[in-house]
Order: sequence, then structure tokens, then C-alpha cells
Amino acid sequence: MNVSNRNLINTLKVRVLDSSTGNTVVAILNYKDASKLRLHRGDRIEIYLNKKNVVAIVDESISDIKEGEIGLNFEASNHIKANCGDLARIKPVVKPKSIYYIREKIEGKKLSEEKIKQIVSDIVTNRLSSVEITYFVSASYIRGLSLSETVSLTKAIYSYGEVLDFKKPRSSDILVDKHCIGGLAGNRTTPIIVPIVAASGLLIAKTSSRSITSPAGTADVIEALCDVCLSKDQIISTVKKTGACMVWGGSLALAPADDEIIRVEHPLSIDSDNQLVASVMAKKKSVSSDVVLIDIPIGPYAKVKNKFQARKLKFLFEFVGKHIGIKTNVIYTDGRNPIGKGIGPSLEARDVLRIFENHEDQPLDLRDKALSMAGLLIEMGGKAKKGEGINVARELLESGKALNKFIEILKTQGERALCSNDIEIASYVKCLELKSEGRIKLIRNDYIAETAKVAGAPKDKLAGVYIRKQAGDLVKKGEVVIEIHSQSKHKLDSAVKFFNEHIPFVM
Amino acid sequence: MNVSNRNLINTLKVRVLDSSTGNTVVAILNYKDASKLRLHRGDRIEIYLNKKNVVAIVDESISDIKEGEIGLNFEASNHIKANCGDLARIKPVVKPKSIYYIREKIEGKKLSEEKIKQIVSDIVTNRLSSVEITYFVSASYIRGLSLSETVSLTKAIYSYGEVLDFKKPRSSDILVDKHCIGGLAGNRTTPIIVPIVAASGLLIAKTSSRSITSPAGTADVIEALCDVCLSKDQIISTVKKTGACMVWGGSLALAPADDEIIRVEHPLSIDSDNQLVASVMAKKKSVSSDVVLIDIPIGPYAKVKNKFQARKLKFLFEFVGKHIGIKTNVIYTDGRNPIGKGIGPSLEARDVLRIFENHEDQPLDLRDKALSMAGLLIEMGGKAKKGEGINVARELLESGKALNKFIEILKTQGERALCSNDIEIASYVKCLELKSEGRIKLIRNDYIAETAKVAGAPKDKLAGVYIRKQAGDLVKKGEVVIEIHSQSKHKLDSAVKFFNEHIPFVM
Repeated sequence: MNVSNRNLINTLKVRVLDSSTGNTVVAILNYKDASKLRLHRGDRIEIYLNKKNVVAIVDESISDIKEGEIGLNFEASNHIKANCGDLARIKPVVKPKSIYYIREKIEGKKLSEEKIKQIVSDIVTNRLSSVEITYFVSASYIRGLSLSETVSLTKAIYSYGEVLDFKKPRSSDILVDKHCIGGLAGNRTTPIIVPIVAASGLLIAKTSSRSITSPAGTADVIEALCDVCLSKDQIISTVKKTGACMVWGGSLALAPADDEIIRVEHPLSIDSDNQLVASVMAKKKSVSSDVVLIDIPIGPYAKVKNKFQARKLKFLFEFVGKHIGIKTNVIYTDGRNPIGKGIGPSLEARDVLRIFENHEDQPLDLRDKALSMAGLLIEMGGKAKKGEGINVARELLESGKALNKFIEILKTQGERALCSNDIEIASYVKCLELKSEGRIKLIRNDYIAETAKVAGAPKDKLAGVYIRKQAGDLVKKGEVVIEIHSQSKHKLDSAVKFFNEHIPFVM
Repeated sequence: MNVSNRNLINTLKVRVLDSSTGNTVVAILNYKDASKLRLHRGDRIEIYLNKKNVVAIVDESISDIKEGEIGLNFEASNHIKANCGDLARIKPVVKPKSIYYIREKIEGKKLSEEKIKQIVSDIVTNRLSSVEITYFVSASYIRGLSLSETVSLTKAIYSYGEVLDFKKPRSSDILVDKHCIGGLAGNRTTPIIVPIVAASGLLIAKTSSRSITSPAGTADVIEALCDVCLSKDQIISTVKKTGACMVWGGSLALAPADDEIIRVEHPLSIDSDNQLVASVMAKKKSVSSDVVLIDIPIGPYAKVKNKFQARKLKFLFEFVGKHIGIKTNVIYTDGRNPIGKGIGPSLEARDVLRIFENHEDQPLDLRDKALSMAGLLIEMGGKAKKGEGINVARELLESGKALNKFIEILKTQGERALCSNDIEIASYVKCLELKSEGRIKLIRNDYIAETAKVAGAPKDKLAGVYIRKQAGDLVKKGEVVIEIHSQSKHKLDSAVKFFNEHIPFVM
């Protein structure tokens, strides 16, 4: 900002527009005013009214908004309690200091905690545009973030977000949490671990995400069993009552800066380890976790391909955990094949219930993995000695105590299905065989995931695939290896076609 | 883009909106349709109608646009000749291939000519968003562009822009051009060089820019003398008639990809040498230049600070010039002080006219610099032997032939002032003295430029500063060293205050 227009302030007459973006604060100016104020589409202005102020993104209009008027969308008018005809003062947003810090990162300099805090604060208060945030993300990715920068970023993200203190009612209790690096179809340990761990007497307040590119996110799967869109108050009372919750974290805005960063990472699939660790750990801190278990599946078609990459992540998670006061353990797990049998929201939910029911078709790989993770969490939370957690977990599952806890949580959140027979089956199911026979060496995670998506998952809750023969199984000629479930004949056909062109079974 | 929604097409009813962005193609969807189609604000869609199609940026609205409707701004509806009620088909834009090439650049790979062409093509056809273009700019800046990448970028920028062939009517003639790296107040050689060079019998079709951050751009200065906003046809006929033109290049969209790149560079003042060279040389190619002279002023407050930086630029310009068939010479000039006396559109225009008039107050530094550059261009264009161009130039200036050519050009473009007395003077002029006396060693270019801007330049055409004592001059106590010109008392006071706090004269 130059000296010459630093103090340019103009008064415009408010028109409250009957439009909403759901999030972004938008102000529309007549193009003549915009030109006078040297503002362009995408610039930011600060709007002052009623002793409140808000930063809005400028849009231009030739005729909808008259000269001297400013159109405010719902988000803008609501924030400053503006009514039609109010006179609002506007001022171009002074180039925020963080612009200079982002420049420093572009030039390869290391940023101090103060500077990273300023960048994150300016992201949260809407003072940085998407283009400016992109420079930060891109420079952080190409230049890399140091360990201390990663810790600073984590701290800044949670300190400029909301913190949900679930421990208030039971402050002496230990709150444990888990996170999976993801990328593995079916790997739905959360809804099995949460009830077991809660049944052991630990607190566990699990927020999960929906699918972005996968056939199902954990929140999508749990939604087949109960409501996951809870308000903050509902979540706190659920945890207070049951010692646990399993909800969608998306609407809680626990880490708004992180949401913005992820939004600009998405178009280029930017995937920085440091950014990932800061994002995950900040969210864990936002829900007051004391203890976190991180699951890194390693496999050729998983997100983490090898031990080298896994070790780097493990080190980062533990380093950040230590510096923000969260006891963090990282485990490597087998990520060569999908975990469980069902892939897709409802089919995965059915697997989960079958494990609690000790059903003959339960996926034993998923059961074993969930038990060992629950055992570790029970040990980390101090409810079992080292090496004995898995026995405690198994006893809770086999005795039915975990199922009771599960049902208690589902009922508190608003249950949709309490036993595996409650799960609806898709309108179209096609059973498929292979042309070859022999032992299955590997099931390609990427092809399985894509087949489920072509069948309609995660949008069609009942769509997906059900793996009848898992890695290690012997397949005879004519035996069904997989079922494809879909709600539309067309999508079923497309999925069958995709499957036949991309056979995931490696013999 | 996943297999699962690659072919998602929907039909929506057009509503032509009475709004225009001036450039960006916008489509507004009801938020429910947007959600169904998994589209978000800022995503791109392809709209098909009347066998035409256009890529538009999506915006959302809760109530303005009903479900099943699509609102098109002027740019969108005009492009596909849409009328209200038409049924348009829309399809999410498939992730363009160039996204993967930008990723490669982020990872530090060198891009082939094919890949750079694809990126530039996708920028021009609106298939890449601002965020995606920012990744390209940021990766190119941090990773650097190789020589061959810079040549590829230059070629791509001009091949995806319009080419104005000024030589058609006089194809045997040589078209010369010049460019200054800029950053030096007052350095207005163009309107002196163009008439001299044209009077020598060479063609010169000069497009210039307006000020972005400086107190005056060349187009702003020439606008004090004649019209600079000419259509392509008007430009071509001006060159045909006079052998020259001096116009604003901004509305010609000669290099639309470059305009987009500059737009995302601006917020972080990203200033890459390779990008600069590609941008300048592509625009020279777009106007069919055969010969280009590049002026690099070097000085502590100029854009180029030292010989090292200048040598790198010289090499780049000459390398690119050679590979795109433009004979390119680069000269280093003295950039320690502002050039000329007037700073600001009208005051600079007065300097220019005074040089043609051989006026007693003419700025000799500007006269000498323009003569030597015109001389070089005359040599490069083959109208004088090496070392003799400057004599030819001086003769054309002193004989009045250049002034006649100047008046011919001004009249053809629509003259506003033909002699220095025609130039209007600002309402408020304040003469300022220094507290010290002695010889002026240096005049700080940055402080001079800012003083002129605080006084109102370039928006107030008459505002600026007039330097009465230049570097090397002896100043006695009480002597006026500078005049500040302004159209407002308030701005005049601010400029005087700024001047007194930032004295540009170093004794």
C-alpha cells in the first residue's frame, strides 16, 4: 500500500443482498466506484458499521448495484448487523504484514513463531486472499518447513481456532485419540476402537472427516449407524454421558486456518508431510487430547509407500506431539491390501457391526487391527500394563461390554442401525468371478477404491464393493471373489466394466 | 477428475444477468444445484449452447438464481450467444493436463516446450484458476526457469495472443522497438525516440503501459499529448500513415496469458527476471518487431541495483531475442538519479515538448539519453553506420524534422497539446528550498517518486514534482530546488510534509 492511498475511506449505502456463499464474506460495488477506489474483483476491503467491522472480498457489478451503493451478502451483513440504507465506511485492506513474511518464505528464509502466527491470524481473519495463501503453501512445500516451523504452524492453527474442552466435566480423566494417515480402502478401525476404549474407562472424543477422494470417509460410515452432525453442545453432552463420541468434524471449524490451507492445496493435490502433521496435531489439540495413536499403513497403493517415508512422518508426529504436550505414539501397519471386506459407507458399517456381533462373516483382519490399536490406547491411557492392553480390549469386545457402550453412543447420537441386519442392501448387486484360479497374493487398493466409486460411493450410501476373497485366500474356478453394490443399473454396469478392465486381484 | 464424475453433464435454464466483470466469465448456480454437482465457488464449468462453449467460474447464490437455473454474466452469455430461457448443458471442467505439468515444476522438473504451451493455453482459455496459476508462478520463481523454458514461455505467450502485423502495408521496412526495464522517475525517452526514429524512415509501433506503482507510465504521459486508447484498426492505419504510433497496449490483449500471470504476481510483488524477459519479448513479437533496444538503468534506487543483475538480464534478453528472431541490443544506462525534470504525466509531457522546441529549460539529461538511444535504433535498423546513428538522430531533432513527425503522429492519434505552452499547470504549486547548501550528489529516485504520488500523480494528470536543481548542480541558500504541483490543497500539504520528512537531495 502506498502512502498516497493508505487512508482512502469512502462511505457507501448498504444494500443487503438475498444471497449467501455459506462462508465467504462478499461485498459488491458498482464498477465505477470500484474503479474510483482502484479496487478489483478479488481485492479485500474493510467495512465499518455499528462499531463493528469485517473484511470482505470485492466483487463488481455494472448495474445491479448503483453508484454509491455497496451490496453485502448474508455473511457480510450479518457480521456487522447491517440493514438496507445504513451508511457503511469502507477502506481498502492495508497489505497485511504477513505478505512480507510469505515473501521471506518464498526467498527461502526460516520463519519465526511470531511470523507464522501472523500469517495464520491473517488467514483466519480473511485478510489474505487465496492467491496469497497459495504462495505460502507453495513456498512452504518447495522450500520445506523446519521442525520448529512445523511446531509453530501447529500452535498457530489451534490457537486461532476453537478449543473444545471435553474434559471439563471429568477433568481427572485421560482423553485419548487416534488418527490414520489414510489412503487404504475399508480400514475403518475408528467405530470399533472408540467403544472399546470408552468401555475401558478412558475418554475418547473422535471427530472424523467425510470422503474427499475416497469411496468413504469415517464420518460417512458412522453416518450409516447414527447422526454425525452434532452441535458443539450436543458433542459435549454426548461425551459427558457416554465418555465418547464419533462425529463429523467438518462443521466445527476447529481449525479454520487449516481448512483454508487445505482448500488451496486441493487443486494441485499438494501433500506436504509437515503441513499434514500440523493439521492433524492442531485438531487433536483442539479437542484437548492427552494421548494420540497414529496409524501409518504402508503399502504400494497406500498413501505411504515405504518405511523411509513412514519414519519421517513418525519422527515429525512425535516431535510436534512432544512440543504441544500430547503423548504421541506412531505405529506402522500393513497397508498392502484393503482392510475389511466392505468398501463404501453402508458396507463398511455392516462390517463394523458384524465384528461386535462376532458374526461368521466378520472381517478378521479389521477386527485384529482394531483390537491391537485399542489395546495400545488402553495402555497409553494407563488402563493396562504394557503388553496387556490387547487382552483388556479383547475381553471388552468378547464380553459384549464394548457392544453395550457402542449402542449407548449410537442411541445418544441418534441411532440409525444397531445390528448388522438393520443395514439396507443396494438395489443392484452383481457377483463377479475371476478367469484365473489360485491364491490371492495382493488386492490393489487403488482399483478397489475406484470400482466402489464408479458404483456410486460415497454419494450413494449403499453403493460400493464387498470383497468375498481376501489376500491369502485360495480361489477356485467359478468362485465369487467380489460383489458390486449400486443404486443404479447404469453405475453398476460402469463399475463392472471398470473392474474387468482393472482387475484388482493379483494371483 | 475421477472416473465416477468425468461425464457428469446437466442441463440448466439460462438467465442472462445484467452484470459484467469487464473480463471474467462467471456463471451463478443455485447453491443446491452446486452442491448436487459438487461444485464450489471458484470451480470452473464448461457451458455448451448453440454449438459454442465457454469455460466459466462458478459462483453460488441461495435465492437469486432458482434451482435448475444458471445465471450468466455478460461475458458468459455474449460468448455463447445465450438468451434467457435457453437450455444450456454444463459439465465440470476436467482437470486440465497442465495441472500435472505445474506439479512437475513444483517438484523441480524442467518443462518441455509442449508442456509450457499447454499451461499457457489453459491460462488463456480460462481452464486454470488463480490458485493454479499462482502455483505455476511461484514454482517457476522458486525453482527458476531454465533458458530453454524461458524461450518456450515467450513463444507460448505470443502464440496464444494476438499478433498485430504492422508491416503488412510496408513489408520490406524494418520495424524497430524499444523497452526500458523501468523504475526510474521521469525517464520518458519513448515520445522523443519514436518521432526521431520514424523521421529516419524506420517503422516504430510503440505500445506502452500505464503506471502501476509509479507516478506516471509512458502511456499516461503521452495521453497528455494525444489519445492513446486506439483500436487495432486505428493503430494499423496510424502506422501506415505516419510510420509510427505511441499507444496504450493495455486494451489490446496482445499477451492475455502474460496479463494473468502479472495479475497473480502483483499481490506478492513477485519479480522474476525470466518471467519479465518472456513478458517483454513476447509483446515485442506480437507487434512484429524486427529489432529491439532494451534500456537497463542501473542505480541504488532503480529496479536494477548493480551490474551483476544487469548482466544476467542482458544475457537473457539477447538469448530469447535470438531464439524468437528479434535482433536485440541491451544497453546499461545511468540510473542513479531521476531522468529529466518533470515527474508526473503533464510535467513529463512538457519536458518532452521542450526538447523538441529546444526550449531553454529543456532537460538535457533526457535529451542526451533519448538521442543516443534513437541513434542506436537507427543503426540497428540499418539507416546509419555504426557510430553515426547519434549524428543522424541529432540532425533530425535539430532540423525540426523530428518535431514535424511528432506533430503528424499526435494529429493522427488525436492531439491534445502540440507545444509546451499548451500544457496546463496544476492549481497549486509550491516551491521548496533546502536547509543546506552545496553540490547535489544524488537525488533519491524512490523519495521523488513517492512525493509525486502523494501530490496526486498519476491519477491527477497535472500533479507531480518539477526538479529545478539536478544532480551535479550547485545549490545556494534560499534557492528553489523543487516545485510540487497538485490539484488539491490537502494533497499539496501532504506532499510537502512527505518531502520534508524524506529529503531526496543528497549533498
